[in-house]
Formats: sequence, C-alpha cells, structure tokens
Amino acid sequence: MDKRVALLTQTGDYAGPELARRLVDGHHLVLHAPKAALVDELRRRGAEVEVVEGAEVDLRTAEGNNFLVERAISRFGRIDAVALVTGMSIITGRFLEITPEQWEHTKSENLDMAFYGLQALIPSMASQGSGDIVVFTSATGARPEPGVSTYSSTRAGANALVRAVGLEFARSGLCINAVGTNFMDFPGFLRASGADKDAERRAKIEAQVPARRLAGMGELSEFTAVHLEGKTRFQTGQFFSYSGGWSA
Amino acid sequence: MDKRVALLTQTGDYAGPELARRLVDGHHLVLHAPKAALVDELRRRGAEVEVVEGAEVDLRTAEGNNFLVERAISRFGRIDAVALVTGMSIITGRFLEITPEQWEHTKSENLDMAFYGLQALIPSMASQGSGDIVVFTSATGARPEPGVSTYSSTRAGANALVRAVGLEFARSGLCINAVGTNFMDFPGFLRASGADKDAERRAKIEAQVPARRLAGMGELSEFTAVHLEGKTRFQTGQFFSYSGGWSA
Amino acid sequence: MDKRVALLTQTGDYAGPELARRLVDGHHLVLHAPKAALVDELRRRGAEVEVVEGAEVDLRTAEGNNFLVERAISRFGRIDAVALVTGMSIITGRFLEITPEQWEHTKSENLDMAFYGLQALIPSMASQGSGDIVVFTSATGARPEPGVSTYSSTRAGANALVRAVGLEFARSGLCINAVGTNFMDFPGFLRASGADKDAERRAKIEAQVPARRLAGMGELSEFTAVHLEGKTRFQTGQFFSYSGGWSA
Amino acid sequence: MDKRVALLTQTGDYAGPELARRLVDGHHLVLHAPKAALVDELRRRGAEVEVVEGAEVDLRTAEGNNFLVERAISRFGRIDAVALVTGMSIITGRFLEITPEQWEHTKSENLDMAFYGLQALIPSMASQGSGDIVVFTSATGARPEPGVSTYSSTRAGANALVRAVGLEFARSGLCINAVGTNFMDFPGFLRASGADKDAERRAKIEAQVPARRLAGMGELSEFTAVHLEGKTRFQTGQFFSYSGGWSA
Repeated sequence: MDKRVALLTQTGDYAGPELARRLVDGHHLVLHAPKAALVDELRRRGAEVEVVEGAEVDLRTAEGNNFLVERAISRFGRIDAVALVTGMSIITGRFLEITPEQWEHTKSENLDMAFYGLQALIPSMASQGSGDIVVFTSATGARPEPGVSTYSSTRAGANALVRAVGLEFARSGLCINAVGTNFMDFPGFLRASGADKDAERRAKIEAQVPARRLAGMGELSEFTAVHLEGKTRFQTGQFFSYSGGWSA
Repeated sequence: MDKRVALLTQTGDYAGPELARRLVDGHHLVLHAPKAALVDELRRRGAEVEVVEGAEVDLRTAEGNNFLVERAISRFGRIDAVALVTGMSIITGRFLEITPEQWEHTKSENLDMAFYGLQALIPSMASQGSGDIVVFTSATGARPEPGVSTYSSTRAGANALVRAVGLEFARSGLCINAVGTNFMDFPGFLRASGADKDAERRAKIEAQVPARRLAGMGELSEFTAVHLEGKTRFQTGQFFSYSGGWSA
Repeated sequence: MDKRVALLTQTGDYAGPELARRLVDGHHLVLHAPKAALVDELRRRGAEVEVVEGAEVDLRTAEGNNFLVERAISRFGRIDAVALVTGMSIITGRFLEITPEQWEHTKSENLDMAFYGLQALIPSMASQGSGDIVVFTSATGARPEPGVSTYSSTRAGANALVRAVGLEFARSGLCINAVGTNFMDFPGFLRASGADKDAERRAKIEAQVPARRLAGMGELSEFTAVHLEGKTRFQTGQFFSYSGGWSA
Repeated sequence: MDKRVALLTQTGDYAGPELARRLVDGHHLVLHAPKAALVDELRRRGAEVEVVEGAEVDLRTAEGNNFLVERAISRFGRIDAVALVTGMSIITGRFLEITPEQWEHTKSENLDMAFYGLQALIPSMASQGSGDIVVFTSATGARPEPGVSTYSSTRAGANALVRAVGLEFARSGLCINAVGTNFMDFPGFLRASGADKDAERRAKIEAQVPARRLAGMGELSEFTAVHLEGKTRFQTGQFFSYSGGWSA
C-alpha cells in the first residue's frame, strides 16, 4: 500500500469536499459525515473511501473521536494526515446576551472538539513517528472582537492548544498546525454574516476584507494540502490565518 | 462618600492581600473569601470592608458572581475597580494524560470564571459609564507550552475574551485588562512548580526566568493598582505579562 | 543622596513635561531639551534639574547619547530611571511615495535613537545592577498599517530591539520596556492626524479609537511612572500599548 | 506565452536553487546571481532563464532593484511571482559590542532590501492587478533574542513592513507575505551557528529546535511555492515562520 491515509472530519460542507478532491490521488480517505455524492465522485476517481457517520461519532467527546480513529485504523492500518474541522455553528451577539447554554455550546464545539480530537489522533501517530494534523479553527482567534467575543475567545484557546501540543509532539515527528479562516464563500459563513441575504449586504462584508472578496474552498484546499501531504514538515504548533489579510 | 469601591476575588492567597493593602486608603473594599487576619488588619487601618464568602459564591457560575456583585452594590452602591482572580489550581502534565475531568475543571476555572465574572460585573459599570477591571490570568496564556497545554490554552482563551469584551465596552468608559503572571512567590506557584521542595529545585525554577528570581506579591500589586485606581484609563482589552520577561 | 536619578529625553513636548512633574518628588532630574518654563517650575518645587541641550546632543548618534549620559552621571553619579523618547516626526503617506530621504529619516529617528540610546545607557546601569528604562515608541509598531507603513515598520523594529535587549540584561537587574502610544492629545499627533484642523476632523479621529477619545499626557505619565519608580521590577523586554484599546 | 514569470533574488545559495527547480515547469525564471551550474540545469530542463548579476544589482538600493525589475520586464513583459531573499550575513553578538558599522550593515541588508525591493516590484504588479511576493526574512523577527538583538530587531521591522504594505495593496490583487526561517541546513546558517564545526555542536543546535533537526531547502521550497504559484491567493501581509516550531 503506497498511498497515504487522510482522515477528514465534518466533510458535508466547508473545507472537506474540496480537500478530499485535492488529496484523493495520493491518499486513501476516511471521511466523516460526507454527502453521498462526494463519496460517489471520489470512488469513481478510484479512491478507497471509508465513511464514518452517525450518532456514535459525536466529535465533542472522547468516545466519538476514538470511534472515528479506530475505524480509520481498522480499515487502513494507519493515519498519515488529518484535517480536523472544529466548530460548526458561529454564535454571534453582544457579550451580555450570550446565554450559559450558548457559552457551553461554543466551548464544546471550539475547544472540546480540538482537545478530544487531538487526544484520539496522537497516540498512533506518535507510535509511527510521523503524522500531519491541521486543525481548522478561525481567524477570529487571532483577532478577538466584539460581536464574536465568546466565539473568538474559544478559538484563541484552540489555537493555543495547538501551539502547546504541537511543541510537545514535535520531537515525535508530528506536525500539528491550526488554520484559521474567515470570509470563506460557503453557506455557513454566508448565513452567519448575512452575506446570503442580498448583493448589498455581501458587498459590505467584502469591504471588511483587505483583499475585498470572499475566498473559495478550492484555494483553501491548496494552502491546507501543503501541510498534509508530507512534503514539507518543518512547521508545527503554528497558526496560519486564511482571511484575505484580515488577521495575521 | 468620596472613596472608590474595589472588589477583589479569591483574596485568601495570591494577589489579594497585598492588593487590598495597596488600595485600602482610597477604596472601600469588598473582599471575597479573605482570611480573618487580613480583614482585621484592614479595618484597623480604618477601611470599610464587606466580606463575601461561602458556598453561595461559586465563581464558576453566573449565580455565584451575581451574588457577589449584588452584595457589593447593596453595601456600597457601586463598584469602581475589580481584581478578578480566575483559576486556582494549576493542572500540569502530559497532554495525553489529561483526563476529561481535569479538562472540565481547567475550562471551568480559567474560562467560566472570566466569562461569568465579566457578565456579572459589566452591567452596573456600563450604566455608570466607568469601571476598571483587571482579570488575573496567566503568562502561559501568551506562551503556551508542553506540560501546561490545557492550562495555557484556556488562559489564552480568557486573555482573548478580555480583548474582545474590553473592545466592546471601551466606548462605555470601561477599562478591562488581563494581567498574566508566572513565577510568583506564593504557595500555589511554589507547590505547582516544585519550588517549595528544596533550594536546588527553586534555583532551577529561577533559572528559567530571564530576571532570575521569583516576584513578590507587593510588586505585583504596584503594577496592578495603576490599572485600578482610575488615574490612567487609556488601556483596555489588553494583556500584560508579569513574568520577569518570560513572556511578552 | 536619597533621591533616585531620572533622565528624560526630548522633554519639550509629548510625555516629558508631565512625566517630569510626576517624578519630581522622588527624583533628581536630567532633562534633555526642556522648555525653560518647565525647568523653572520644577526648580520652584525644589528639584535639582540638570539641563542638557544643543547641537551636541543629537540622539540619533552614539556621540549624542554618550554626551547626555556623561552629563547625567557627572552631575548625579548615577542614573536610575530613563524615559527615552524616540522618533519625533511622524512621516505618513502611500508606500510608493515614501522617498529614500524619508526612509532614512524614519529609520534614524525610530531605530537609531533606540539603538544608540540603549547602548549609551546600559553600561552604567548594568554595573550598578539596577535601572529602569522605558523607550517610548508607537502603538503602530504592534499594528502596522497602510499610511504609516515605514513608520510602523521601524517602530516594530524598535519594539523588538527592546524585547531582545531587555532579555539580555534581565539577569543584570535592568528593566527595559517599550511603551507605544497612539491617539495622544499633544501637538505632534494633532498635526500628523489632522485633528488640529477642526472639530469634525477630530471627531473622526476619535471614532477610530475604541475608547472614543484622545488621551492626556497626565494619564500617560501615571502608567509610565510605575515602570520607572522601582517599586515593581518584574517586567522587562515587554511592549505596552497605550492607545485606547486600538492595539494590544 | 502561457507560463508565469518568477523572479528570484540571491539564488547562489539558500532558498533560490531549490525554489527555481520547484517552479521551473510553470514559470519563466529571472534569477539574480545564480551559479552557472544551476542555470545550465534549468535550461536543460527547457526553461527560459534570464540571469541578472553584477555590481549594478545592489539590492540594498533603489537603483539595484529597479535595474533587476526592468531586466525582468524587458525580457518577459511581466512578473507574476517573486521570492525576495533579504539579508545575507547574520551578525550575532552581545548588544553592547555591536558596532555602528555592523548596525548600519544589518539595517541595510534586512530593512533596505525589503523596502527597495517592494518599491521596485509593486508598480507593475499593481498595474496588472495581480502578483505574488514572498519576502524571506527570519524566524528571529518573531522571537527577538539576546545574541541576535539587532539582527532580529531589523527582521521584525521587515516583517511589519510586509504586513503594512501587504494590507495597502491587498485590494490591488497582490499577495505579499514574509517567510521567516531558522535552523535551515545550508552553509550560511551552519557557519553562523557553528553547526559546521563538529557533530557535537550540530547536535546542540538541533536540540534547540522543537522538531530536533535542521530543515532542507527542498521542503522549504514546497511551502514557499504554494504562495507563489497563484493557486491560493487569500493570504497577504502575513508572516509565516519556518523554524521547526521554534517561533510561531
């Protein structure tokens, strides 16, 4: 078996589909919660694809992440590259109006997913002495702001966790980095920002981006793939903003 | 009533006692969980001191923080300055050995205390159009490292929360800043670092500090007081490391 | 001689006058280029003031800084605290329109003043095993932006120099920190930003500040003095933004 | 003409040779100061290569950079991608022993090369509405330290210049980023660090790297190429450390 094994989480939307297409030629794929059409397309291109989905795979828990990792290893024997998409819902609003339930939810999606994901993934990678993990977080983690105070705070926490854990396992041959996006052209962002409402609202959003546009998932996958394919392995514990210059 | 009103949490140890002594001349004091001897000393110096303690004041909850704030306002009518000590136990260890219970505990002390504390404190301060809050976090939040991966990650999250919330209420006249310490000469740090064991171990700890020493609580209170006394009010949403140069 | 000795540069404007007033009770003062009225005022308050001025004191050169330091030591025998005001003119404009002359000028004021100032000041302080230096730079150094590209770049360089040199001399008992201001209410900023033109323009400038106002020199001197008076000495190599929350 | 045009400076050593090999299939190449063998190799692979070298191309000056850019445009009509290698000599030592000559030299190589390089490159790229520039700086710019105080300070200044200028031209379609390396396995670093002396010294150097090794130029070119090939264009004004986790 010459191909590497890549595991991608939450592939129904956001970075997953384009990243799977980008990696398919060199990797067997373990896809968490993909759309059926994506799996069909990848298989038509000759990929071996393991699909993991359902209630057992709650990525906010140790059990869910362990289940996912065990399925991947059971099918392909190892994991070489992981794109861990953390967070799903972007909770915005004034700080004083954030409810305890929203706060718990945000911590769970933005922090627990990173914590339990890394705890589940690292042991086999450390044993094999190599492994590349990209944790998708948010560019707001590097630029906390009103309106996203709790969201950006927990994203900053996740970025810091990646820094510390990346440093801990650097000598074990792992590369663990965070990619934080903002202003991506996909349904989740368009809804959260209101850019799906009308052209005028979208133009206002774009005006906030130094690059004056939203980015496509295809170009994000180009940048992310370089951290997953194993050809450059001298960055770890680092945060990369992917936000049109909005945050550094 | 000419004196300002200062509220200090977790004053049994760490920054509280020296900060109370530093502020006592210009402030009425609301002290959470102080030692009796400190209260006696402050009262002998002529201070009006409100003591709030007991199981009702769980600072990891909305209820506990609201209880504390209500007691302060009920006694003195307002709050001008707050030193919010968050976190208590420093959980260290290898990342893969951090248990779910430790992770929950760390999030609760380092993040929930900041979140619920700020939510309870801000409304009355925003109404009065002024207020100075220092949230004590940790210098590790600005320098996440192995051994303190989850601790430093949640501290980074709290620092980011202070940034975002500070920006949100800057126009309301509030100054909300984080002071992150490391290498302080008090029982909690000495125990967590092992510097209480013997002189050799302490020397090793001190060698990690650019300044080659641990700091006293008196000098920390000098730096902190400047952000609480209302004489300089043009910094907010900022993080100040107090760590002998260890982190910036 | 019980008083400490403080040296302040470029005291004709900006931070110098208020800082001199703030420090005068506990310090003998060495003032570079003060206005005569300030010196009169300080002497009436009982201060011993050494004035150093004239063409020999070009602070962009080794010679100028050495001359200043020698005069201070010759008069008072030592230097305990220094506020090194670097930069004078704020050169703004589009990047492609910055001329080589402006670039040289900006490097000279923002970088050379810090470099030669620190080289002149440190030897006697390192010998005596103590000394507190604040280098005034700019908050733009922590938030480089179009319009101030070369100005903010060289300020960032100076902040980094303070970090490195602060770390180098931490074990020698020195505290060397940078304070970077923006949106200060003094003629230099008002002119550079256009806020001296009319009330409308000033309101626009203030709207860029999270705190929605400009700061006075008196409050800046309160914050700065805490780093100069020797009562708290556990921060070094650090950068402190003083900008109403504009940069962290 | 379907190929893009890439311009690489200081290609005699460091990143240039491997980057030229990595880009050669999709780009015409303008190489500053390459070794003859590299040019031969690239031409054998079918590349069109313009060589620019000699005393006229002093990259510390406006004239030198303009000369280089004009030659590139004269030959190929446009420039799409640039790897601007700034700095050459790594001046280390104690801060008080850095001479004025060394300081001038360091500013000139680390700052002037970036300033004049960007001023020469941007006009034609802004006219065409696209262009990708990577400025090679140093990871020490993000982690200033004793021993490299002036070197890291000027590198930090260059990183900040890239941030400001990147933001200024983001709306013009340019991507301008900095890549800061440390611990690269090439003669310049080996000499400056002493790692070329013996195996023991090299082992000590490697122990300072979280990844516990030096990196090859091939893997650096993999990371850099992704910012030059035009397939992902949503990062600008950013700094990327390439240092085995040593700096973030």
